[in-house]
Amino acid sequence: MADPLPPGSTIGILGGGQLGRMLAQAAAKLGLRACVMAPERDSPAFDVAAAHICADYDDEGALRRLAEEADVVTFEFENVTARALEVLESATRVAPPRRALEITQDRIAEKSFVDGLGLATAPWAPVSGRAALRQALERLAGMGEHGPFFLKMARQGYDGKGQMRLAGADDLGEAADWLGERAAVLEGAVAFEIELSMVAVRAADGQMAFYDPPHNTHRSGVLHESLVPASIPASVVEQAQDHARSIAEALDYVGVIAVEMFLEGSGEGFRLSINEIAPRVHNSGHWTIEACTVSQFENHIRAVAGWPLGSTRRHSDARMVNLLGRDVDAAFTLIAENPARSLHLYGKREARPGRKMGHFVEILPRKEC
Amino acid sequence: MADPLPPGSTIGILGGGQLGRMLAQAAAKLGLRACVMAPERDSPAFDVAAAHICADYDDEGALRRLAEEADVVTFEFENVTARALEVLESATRVAPPRRALEITQDRIAEKSFVDGLGLATAPWAPVSGRAALRQALERLAGMGEHGPFFLKMARQGYDGKGQMRLAGADDLGEAADWLGERAAVLEGAVAFEIELSMVAVRAADGQMAFYDPPHNTHRSGVLHESLVPASIPASVVEQAQDHARSIAEALDYVGVIAVEMFLEGSGEGFRLSINEIAPRVHNSGHWTIEACTVSQFENHIRAVAGWPLGSTRRHSDARMVNLLGRDVDAAFTLIAENPARSLHLYGKREARPGRKMGHFVEILPRKEC
Repeated sequence: MADPLPPGSTIGILGGGQLGRMLAQAAAKLGLRACVMAPERDSPAFDVAAAHICADYDDEGALRRLAEEADVVTFEFENVTARALEVLESATRVAPPRRALEITQDRIAEKSFVDGLGLATAPWAPVSGRAALRQALERLAGMGEHGPFFLKMARQGYDGKGQMRLAGADDLGEAADWLGERAAVLEGAVAFEIELSMVAVRAADGQMAFYDPPHNTHRSGVLHESLVPASIPASVVEQAQDHARSIAEALDYVGVIAVEMFLEGSGEGFRLSINEIAPRVHNSGHWTIEACTVSQFENHIRAVAGWPLGSTRRHSDARMVNLLGRDVDAAFTLIAENPARSLHLYGKREARPGRKMGHFVEILPRKEC
Repeated sequence: MADPLPPGSTIGILGGGQLGRMLAQAAAKLGLRACVMAPERDSPAFDVAAAHICADYDDEGALRRLAEEADVVTFEFENVTARALEVLESATRVAPPRRALEITQDRIAEKSFVDGLGLATAPWAPVSGRAALRQALERLAGMGEHGPFFLKMARQGYDGKGQMRLAGADDLGEAADWLGERAAVLEGAVAFEIELSMVAVRAADGQMAFYDPPHNTHRSGVLHESLVPASIPASVVEQAQDHARSIAEALDYVGVIAVEMFLEGSGEGFRLSINEIAPRVHNSGHWTIEACTVSQFENHIRAVAGWPLGSTRRHSDARMVNLLGRDVDAAFTLIAENPARSLHLYGKREARPGRKMGHFVEILPRKEC
């Protein structure tokens, strides 16, 4: 890693959605310029960035321009093609590192990587197209798993998209039709108590810091609410931090990383398994803007710019609620009925059903002490 | 006042410095577009605004374009000419209102206005050019003021610029040379204990909210540090809020207003006099981004957009320190030695002596309870 980038340097950001937007805002706060590349003309991040390039992610000329303009390039999503990474890396620094993106954009690679670290995952088997489904099912049966199962596409899935649930072996035909020739993983269902996410940041020098894990609630596979503090025992939090550290160190990671985990059991017999790794800032860390000294967005920028990390300490109890689709119409009411709600709207014009339009963070009253 | 502006509306901002920059960032957070007009090509606010107009403040064509683009126009400074206000008002809404700008951009008008409200000011007399100086001095002598005095230009002064100190009548010749034919006020010095600022916000419907008054420390007339909480008795804070309310109501004000006051004496015999009114967000309110639920910048935007105000509650103790000129070279060290420091750099290229380049806000450790 080179020296810290001086103020006035340019952070290239691939992806122009709300994550890119909040990254660009964090860069500007630190006196860094943001150059955002995204294909949509009305990308939310364009409005807050010093420069932008409107181009498809596989446009090599555009990628080269981004790399030339930027002192480091970072990402709001993990689905960056190997070719795009090659073009970017040939001309500038890239963070997080290529390997982190390659592994996390493919569920088979990701689960193999986690297994290789000796960390727990849900029982799983790789599936290379419909013909391999029965064999995967038998493999899971051999582990004592007889359903329900989740069949998840190896690539491009997010927010519950790209997956289907199988009650048991009877659903095999339907699953085969759905899968076709795509690669996937078949997972046994985990009877978890809590789904928690550990949002951590790793600096270029290896220093790490961790945000408090929120209690996340999902609706239709999409994050609805994050609540901090969650009632998670300190021993679980400690192990979750250790897991995130193992993962980040094995990837020689730089930036913010979010690790989603399942917590099974309670008391001393708990089991913490890795569900998914996101090599980026994460929806379940949005509350850090309001409730922490330095947010996940600012710490990601600090890390990729080679700057010292800021404190991840949480100074307030808080609740983050996503506004999806037409939820956004209630924005005025939501802030009028409680002035302790800090509102974020992403500047998206069309409130399509389920689309992430904004969120609010409510600072909760301090408990008397 | 019209209905609340819908998300996606445009906030016009006259002025492109750090205040305009933080206003534009607050607008973007709320899903509003910012269009910034300022004369300097590398204005700090341009980099974070959806649109900008690079033109002189008296360029009527440019002002008209700004008014056409914007659903409301607001300001980062008070020195807006009557003609510019006329052009803007002929095509769009303006907030804060014209009268607030007219009064606060002229010390004579401002002090007369404050006197008219029955609020205390330092003993003062208007001075219309050098020939009127001796008469002003005699008038102050009649109030029992024999020096030292401050001679302050009626217009364009800020951050201690545009003023000189007179030890007494002996300095009259020097003062006359300095003043020339400009208008000014001559003030008796106030032996204040604390210089405090009340940053308040008033919504279009008259609702008001107040931030905690920080203890401000100046260096060479420029704000150096704001500390919250200040040790100011509750009765003083209450009176300071009442004064700010009187001023804002008399101006039918909309937006953030900052009132600088001098506190003389302590205990029940205290006296709170009005030093200066700034019809805008204020340097002594920068700490509100980190330490309050909703910052002064966001509340200003909410108010001028006709939105509900957010809570001004302070959730943390904090210290804001300005980085002037080459102070900014120490930015890395400042954040490395204390991770609880949130850094703001304004993206200014040239670190001229005394120029406001950035600031940091340090979240202070919570006192045990």
